[in-house]
Amino acid sequence: MEAKGMQMLQKENGHKLRIGIVGFGKFGQFLAKTMIRQGHSVIASSRSDYSELCNNMGVTFFRDQRDLCKERPDVILLCTTILAMEPTLRSLPLEELNTSSTLFVDVLSVKEFPMNLFLEVLPPECQILCTHPMFGPESGNIRWAGLPFVYDKIRVSEEGICAQKCNDFLAIFESEGCKMVEMTCADHDRYAAGSQFLTHTVARILGHMNLEPTPIDTKSYETLRHLTEAMTGHSMDLYNGLFLCNANAMEQMEKLERAFDTVKNELMGKLHGMVANQLVHRVSDPLFSGSSSSSFKENNLKIKEREK
Amino acid sequence: MEAKGMQMLQKENGHKLRIGIVGFGKFGQFLAKTMIRQGHSVIASSRSDYSELCNNMGVTFFRDQRDLCKERPDVILLCTTILAMEPTLRSLPLEELNTSSTLFVDVLSVKEFPMNLFLEVLPPECQILCTHPMFGPESGNIRWAGLPFVYDKIRVSEEGICAQKCNDFLAIFESEGCKMVEMTCADHDRYAAGSQFLTHTVARILGHMNLEPTPIDTKSYETLRHLTEAMTGHSMDLYNGLFLCNANAMEQMEKLERAFDTVKNELMGKLHGMVANQLVHRVSDPLFSGSSSSSFKENNLKIKEREK
Repeated sequence: MEAKGMQMLQKENGHKLRIGIVGFGKFGQFLAKTMIRQGHSVIASSRSDYSELCNNMGVTFFRDQRDLCKERPDVILLCTTILAMEPTLRSLPLEELNTSSTLFVDVLSVKEFPMNLFLEVLPPECQILCTHPMFGPESGNIRWAGLPFVYDKIRVSEEGICAQKCNDFLAIFESEGCKMVEMTCADHDRYAAGSQFLTHTVARILGHMNLEPTPIDTKSYETLRHLTEAMTGHSMDLYNGLFLCNANAMEQMEKLERAFDTVKNELMGKLHGMVANQLVHRVSDPLFSGSSSSSFKENNLKIKEREK
Repeated sequence: MEAKGMQMLQKENGHKLRIGIVGFGKFGQFLAKTMIRQGHSVIASSRSDYSELCNNMGVTFFRDQRDLCKERPDVILLCTTILAMEPTLRSLPLEELNTSSTLFVDVLSVKEFPMNLFLEVLPPECQILCTHPMFGPESGNIRWAGLPFVYDKIRVSEEGICAQKCNDFLAIFESEGCKMVEMTCADHDRYAAGSQFLTHTVARILGHMNLEPTPIDTKSYETLRHLTEAMTGHSMDLYNGLFLCNANAMEQMEKLERAFDTVKNELMGKLHGMVANQLVHRVSDPLFSGSSSSSFKENNLKIKEREK
């Protein structure tokens, strides 16, 4: 009982990790805030100079990735954009790290791509955890409770220090109340293409239509407008990444186009039916006659009667 | 002062109207509930038999439109679908009404169509008020406060009994706290094509994609899914009416298609740029090279250097 109690206590408190964040843009900063609040030590490097911002946050910033690696963090957390992931990972001076006890983690919105990239680039002794916190500075601004955190332990030891590091890292999100979803990278990408990528696509399309508030907005239109505004705040690089680096995205584009064509063709069919009713079948109220299949039948009956 | 006080009191309480609702489907029933609660007298007729429902609601139901007209209601409120409006109006036995003191009102989601139809079918002494309560049994289920009520006094006397009837009718919505928007039918249709019709179209398109909840829904995807569910609850007849009977709807379809094509072509351009970079320009990381216009320039510089 006592041992179990101790174990639980340890799990609750977790061990404090030294986390090296590579790529310290908005999302890296967003995650770092919570990690620091939880008592973890965060160091960072980035293409841009974030020295001052890091100083204010309590993060040690290194202009040179090599200096970050020399600190031998427990976790290398890549927070680059999807498109910058490969060159960033390839440029990391792995020789400075204790690779066999370093956990590599990514947080990209696509998962098969970083998984395969990690497996290709990293030496076999490196531990790999692929994750996707499905929220950001907007949706997870106040709290993370109930928001999905997807992860896939690609190469994590069953026990020992590396297993512990992985559990401690996951505990960062678990302890904030995230909905922890263990899922293969392939499943993630399949689901995310039909949900996240589709939502971004709809918002991008509506973004090109410049939706304006009108004096007579319906509730639904307001919802659509706010969704579009929120989504188009994301970078074009993210959207391109969601498309290029998710093997299922093209299928969703095709599905969306087919759905658009279906709706459009239904409407055009109505138009043609009405004009044909009016000009060919000489129906006096083509709008009403064409309104339902039953009216269409009645209409046909009328025509047949006339033909007699 | 006293006279003014009396006038205000009268206005607040309003006069009780006898309202004849023609077409007693969901929307007619929805409006009738509030009218009855406010103390107005409601009579109704419809293609379907709503005798029992009306009995329970405190509404007098007539199977025959002629019997409804014989009751000489103050207001004839047409609550048919867009597509059924013309045959219903044309079949009304106007000779039974005291046309010169009857106010004709419609509540359709398009406005130029019923306006022109009223002007064409009704004798010149009839009073005409075109309205669009921009809510329904879903969005206005609990209260109407703040929800837009659009109206256009097409042919309403400046003073006298008909002016009073019109004010009393508008007061039904004003007293519930609706946002009263006086607007021409043409302006309404222009705004509504870009907001209401567009929202219905997006929901219809997504309806064809069978959006399913996934274990990893983002907040935005949830919003889109709920919007689609709520909107596709509306009848196909309503959607067809919004398209066929709004002169601005086709323009919005074209705009939506252009926006879709823009997004699609941007993505396809990315794809081709990457393949061209890889195969023609022999770039090792085409994903990263093609990620922004600045990288593209750098890339071009590299190519030029090589060409020297």
